[in-house]
Amino acid sequence: MQITGTASTTSVLRVMNSRAVFAEVFRLGKASRPELAQATGLSKPTVALALTHLERAGLLRQVGQRAGAAGRSALLYEVRPQAGWVLAVDVGRGYVRVAIADLLGAIVARTDRPSRGSRASTLAAQLIRLADELAAEVGIARSDITLTVFGTPGVHDPQTGALRSAPNLPGWDRPGAVDRLAEVAGAPFVVENDVDLAAVGEGAYGLGVGIAHFVYVSIGTGTGMGIMIDGRLYRGFRGAAGEVGYLPVAEGDPLQDEPASRKRGMFESVASADGIVSLARRLGMTAAVTAKDVFDAARAGDPTATRAVLHEADHVAHALAAVTAILDPELVVLGGGIGSQGGDLLTGPVRDRLTSLVALVPPRIEVSVLGADAVLRGALAVGLTAARDLVLNRAASL
Amino acid sequence: MQITGTASTTSVLRVMNSRAVFAEVFRLGKASRPELAQATGLSKPTVALALTHLERAGLLRQVGQRAGAAGRSALLYEVRPQAGWVLAVDVGRGYVRVAIADLLGAIVARTDRPSRGSRASTLAAQLIRLADELAAEVGIARSDITLTVFGTPGVHDPQTGALRSAPNLPGWDRPGAVDRLAEVAGAPFVVENDVDLAAVGEGAYGLGVGIAHFVYVSIGTGTGMGIMIDGRLYRGFRGAAGEVGYLPVAEGDPLQDEPASRKRGMFESVASADGIVSLARRLGMTAAVTAKDVFDAARAGDPTATRAVLHEADHVAHALAAVTAILDPELVVLGGGIGSQGGDLLTGPVRDRLTSLVALVPPRIEVSVLGADAVLRGALAVGLTAARDLVLNRAASL
Repeated sequence: MQITGTASTTSVLRVMNSRAVFAEVFRLGKASRPELAQATGLSKPTVALALTHLERAGLLRQVGQRAGAAGRSALLYEVRPQAGWVLAVDVGRGYVRVAIADLLGAIVARTDRPSRGSRASTLAAQLIRLADELAAEVGIARSDITLTVFGTPGVHDPQTGALRSAPNLPGWDRPGAVDRLAEVAGAPFVVENDVDLAAVGEGAYGLGVGIAHFVYVSIGTGTGMGIMIDGRLYRGFRGAAGEVGYLPVAEGDPLQDEPASRKRGMFESVASADGIVSLARRLGMTAAVTAKDVFDAARAGDPTATRAVLHEADHVAHALAAVTAILDPELVVLGGGIGSQGGDLLTGPVRDRLTSLVALVPPRIEVSVLGADAVLRGALAVGLTAARDLVLNRAASL
Repeated sequence: MQITGTASTTSVLRVMNSRAVFAEVFRLGKASRPELAQATGLSKPTVALALTHLERAGLLRQVGQRAGAAGRSALLYEVRPQAGWVLAVDVGRGYVRVAIADLLGAIVARTDRPSRGSRASTLAAQLIRLADELAAEVGIARSDITLTVFGTPGVHDPQTGALRSAPNLPGWDRPGAVDRLAEVAGAPFVVENDVDLAAVGEGAYGLGVGIAHFVYVSIGTGTGMGIMIDGRLYRGFRGAAGEVGYLPVAEGDPLQDEPASRKRGMFESVASADGIVSLARRLGMTAAVTAKDVFDAARAGDPTATRAVLHEADHVAHALAAVTAILDPELVVLGGGIGSQGGDLLTGPVRDRLTSLVALVPPRIEVSVLGADAVLRGALAVGLTAARDLVLNRAASL
């Protein structure tokens, strides 16, 4: 985004000062001119000018007064929540989750719906409908959205507009498929790997708050891992970091279908939802239809289901042994459908097996507290940071 | 290090200005006062003051003149190489490698010797002797060394003074063992994992120059990996990142000794030097005594040795599959004894096998160009950066 208007040093400085003041109001929640001068190191007249500009642009508003030192009172300013809107979309295989948040991060509308199909055009049409509905609920138009963040499986290749490594979204590996999402956004948008977003969400709102190095391991329909290093998402050279589905750690299951496992990845083929269901059935649990069935039966004491769960724990422990030996994270957050539904049964056996596999101090292993909302929360975290910059840049170009 | 003397704003500013000028002379090699004013944004009188101070402290020296614009000529300054000395020590199992570099990074003395023993006290005595010899060669005393950097196996725990995960240095896991190295240094010193230093060395002087994300995989007596992310060493939460010896990827060798492999780690027990020798012997190659024997025989066409090498490539490919799935690096540098001696035979089969294991674009795989010097070069790179700060801080406190 270019700053238009008079490109003089003065206007650049003015934008920088506004940026500093805006950031401090975000940080402080409510702040007076003297407090902002103190916090930014700018002079009071400069702060006053920035406040006037930000208020006129609709980014800040006055919100009462605070009693000052010598009987004088100071006007308080806060961010105007309606100054920007973020649309967050979690494109899962079975469900789509959509939310709108205001610029302060409050979720003002949201919905979860079964996905109408995995084809890009079908999905785009459904998402447009949902976004319109949510926007109407909030009393805005879809075009008022400042920024949209999509969480999808696989790796988005911005050069071709295709999603790589997303076998659960057939057809999205075609060039231009992701461009269909632009029709939903109608404004700047970001496409990010869903598990990476879940890691960001966990870092911003969940178990990862204040933790420098942690990973979010998602096991469900597919498998994946989001890596946070020094509090920032690590994507790797080609955006494929954390593709743990390909970990060569499946020796625990001699029955696996070799060619299929190569396409999906060894770890994913045995540890994902259909991997555990198919193992439970081969072990004799004919009633097992979903992974939840297996975990429910294990909780009820079914020995075959328990055996399947311990096999699953063994697979997960092998994957985490590789993660521990390579990344030495402080914390592993277990998420995804299996992490959420079976985490209580898995963490103990996984910890024990991991300890026997590596002669290193293993990381803490915890079940995500954000559950099915992790991707959506991550999308909001990413979106809010970017939206704050966008509204400020737009104000600067007025 | 504290800045002593008059702690006024003026003196703090003076130190900051000197630091900026010193950094620019490093970057430019030779520089005049006007060039330094241009490069730092400081006024010419301020630069002149900083130059006087740095010259008086022995950090810079005049080195001729450069013809100026209007017939006037400008004095040129350069860093005085003797302003600081770095002692770099690679503590291997069989060899110790020691070098002294001046502040510009030129190696002015070095020696490689068979290690006199792995006990901390024996080794410290040998290193003191070698450091004295090298210092004498350079015409300085050991106490003139600005900073010493030791590369050792394992993970240095600064709280206990012990080395963790260094089975090749028995006894060094006792509290205080690392303190024996202080007797060698007699000055500030740094203890860093040897493979981590090799990665830093490769990033500063080798194949990693200009590459944001790469790993250095060392296979020799032991195994290890140094991880560079965004051009910086990544150590993990407990300093154990890259302990690839514990990767659970040994299913290619059904003959492995289970309890021993658990202690050493599955990957290390099969892929390290004695792993390949023991496999070659079990395959029938009774003449194999060292890993080099196996690689030499394979190069000469021996079918049993070739089989052992292909097994080794399979192990390495499995480890790199885990590294690729987790880190997605741009480049894998193969180092260590086996990387250096057998890299030419390994890289091709490793690449092929890796491509069949992961459905991701695999990283480039190259043999280290620094060979046995990688750890020492990394120690110098770390030491030079720190030594430049140290000499400047000392000058500021004069």
